[in-house]
Amino acid sequence: MSNGYSVAVVGATGAVGEEMFKILDERNFPVKNLKAFASERSEGKIVQFQGEKIKVENLAASSFKNIDIALFSAGASVSKEFSPQFASKGAVVVDNSSAFRMDDNVPLVVPEVNPHAAKKHRGIIANPNCSTIQLVVAINPIHRKVRIKRMIISTFQSVSGTGREAILELKEQTEDYLRGNKIKKEVYPHQIAFNLLPHIGSFLPSGYTEEEVKLVNETRKIMEDNSINATSTCVRVPVFISHSEAITLETKASISVDEVRQILMSAPGVVVEDEPGNSIYPLPISAAGRDEVFVGRIRMDESAPNSLNMWVVSDNLRKGAALNAIQIAELLI
Amino acid sequence: MSNGYSVAVVGATGAVGEEMFKILDERNFPVKNLKAFASERSEGKIVQFQGEKIKVENLAASSFKNIDIALFSAGASVSKEFSPQFASKGAVVVDNSSAFRMDDNVPLVVPEVNPHAAKKHRGIIANPNCSTIQLVVAINPIHRKVRIKRMIISTFQSVSGTGREAILELKEQTEDYLRGNKIKKEVYPHQIAFNLLPHIGSFLPSGYTEEEVKLVNETRKIMEDNSINATSTCVRVPVFISHSEAITLETKASISVDEVRQILMSAPGVVVEDEPGNSIYPLPISAAGRDEVFVGRIRMDESAPNSLNMWVVSDNLRKGAALNAIQIAELLI
Repeated sequence: MSNGYSVAVVGATGAVGEEMFKILDERNFPVKNLKAFASERSEGKIVQFQGEKIKVENLAASSFKNIDIALFSAGASVSKEFSPQFASKGAVVVDNSSAFRMDDNVPLVVPEVNPHAAKKHRGIIANPNCSTIQLVVAINPIHRKVRIKRMIISTFQSVSGTGREAILELKEQTEDYLRGNKIKKEVYPHQIAFNLLPHIGSFLPSGYTEEEVKLVNETRKIMEDNSINATSTCVRVPVFISHSEAITLETKASISVDEVRQILMSAPGVVVEDEPGNSIYPLPISAAGRDEVFVGRIRMDESAPNSLNMWVVSDNLRKGAALNAIQIAELLI
Repeated sequence: MSNGYSVAVVGATGAVGEEMFKILDERNFPVKNLKAFASERSEGKIVQFQGEKIKVENLAASSFKNIDIALFSAGASVSKEFSPQFASKGAVVVDNSSAFRMDDNVPLVVPEVNPHAAKKHRGIIANPNCSTIQLVVAINPIHRKVRIKRMIISTFQSVSGTGREAILELKEQTEDYLRGNKIKKEVYPHQIAFNLLPHIGSFLPSGYTEEEVKLVNETRKIMEDNSINATSTCVRVPVFISHSEAITLETKASISVDEVRQILMSAPGVVVEDEPGNSIYPLPISAAGRDEVFVGRIRMDESAPNSLNMWVVSDNLRKGAALNAIQIAELLI
């Protein structure tokens, strides 16, 4: 390993942790020393980084010392307990959980949208929710031009957003269904194979899920505009990787479809895939493994003035999680 | 067979045709004589009705005589050619295709919404598109109370809406994917297994698909209110049966979630499934094989005044096609 930073990945054995090792390598992140942490259950497992074998350490037994950058993706309760300890020993934590996202003292950063916010950190920077990241990458360039007043969003979210065990559950349920076997449910309350669950995160008294509320609140914080109104329905779909979103945007000023395409074609991190006559539009299976946010089906919504529709797809493990976290870390170096 | 009507099913070997035979039986439709028609390719195949074997006849070789009620589900071009011929020989045609839906001389009927329109027929009554039927059954009771101004709809549509060959394609692609085999595409332009296609019907110059336009235009005609504004994104999902819809409704007058639940609980053909705390909400796999339109996730949309969100699921082969057609036929007897 080269000169550079001492990096820790916390949650090293999860679906996002695995992507983090890949992306640190792909982007030649200046890693001097790499540590892999997980729960006691995974202690001693081996993860690979640039051809080297790294033994997974028990997070609870860590000294938290001599870490420059800690990339956390181990759930909110782990982050709440351990992020402040890493930060107090001098690390900057990039936290992929919901633990600190809405904390006024913690920046919530998408590098294409609000890189300046990262500089204000006090040891912890929050990585937004997967469905929020791809949304703001796609809509921020439009917001800067014509100001978004209101958004209506339906999400189509893949099982990898839940984690590795959900990927396995979709696979096993699908096999059992096709063989006529009984379906086993462990991760989700209902069968996900060949089904849809309008239920992501816990339900709140308002009737919304946590996921639906995050999408609205995190967007306002990242885009630094609390005047944006938004509502959403978040749905889990039987797809392995990539989240998709059907988005209706009502803007203050008018804008044409051609102008939206022009703006998005030069926007950082965005790829416009919008030739419907040739069956070209964003697809989950095409976005999987890619870094960009794909936008298509851009068209005026004639049901209201200054309103437009679009379809936005991105790899939730990469841009929606590991890649965005590492891009945040890159802002620090 | 009892005294009653001489009934023809046109498109007898399709996914909807099969449901028609089941539902005629389940509902004890007064069938005196039943004929099964399909293309020349299916001539001589056997379909079952109430324990009897019925030989499928070649539609093109039919005399169209002595039929009281003809239930068509064989695509728009077949309907355009043959429906008028059946009607001219005295049959009333209930047509499941898009051929005549927007024809001013043809009623477009959902019995829970506009049964009176059926009486004005001149030999042909159109059965609406699957995604429209479940929408209007769910929203019409709300419209009657507080008038809908605008709707934003995202659909999650099952492959059975495309037909029997699409059901097979999802099954085969899923098996090939799990075995690591090459995916074969015949029905859809892209893989549907573990994927999503924002593409149902052909694309129009506006950037919308035919399906998205049908949803808006048919709703206005059935609800007899051209002032309703609507926009939609229609998406094919890897589900076998049942279409799902995330719907945002903006109304003229205000209404509470409790009032909406009360109205829908007493609405014809609607079942409210809305206990999110107990993970009870409409699901495609639960709606499959059922007759009703299931509504849940009812909640206020705080992003606009007088706006609410809901999640609507129904079996697209039954209420979305065969059942609604037979309910129309029941209005005639």
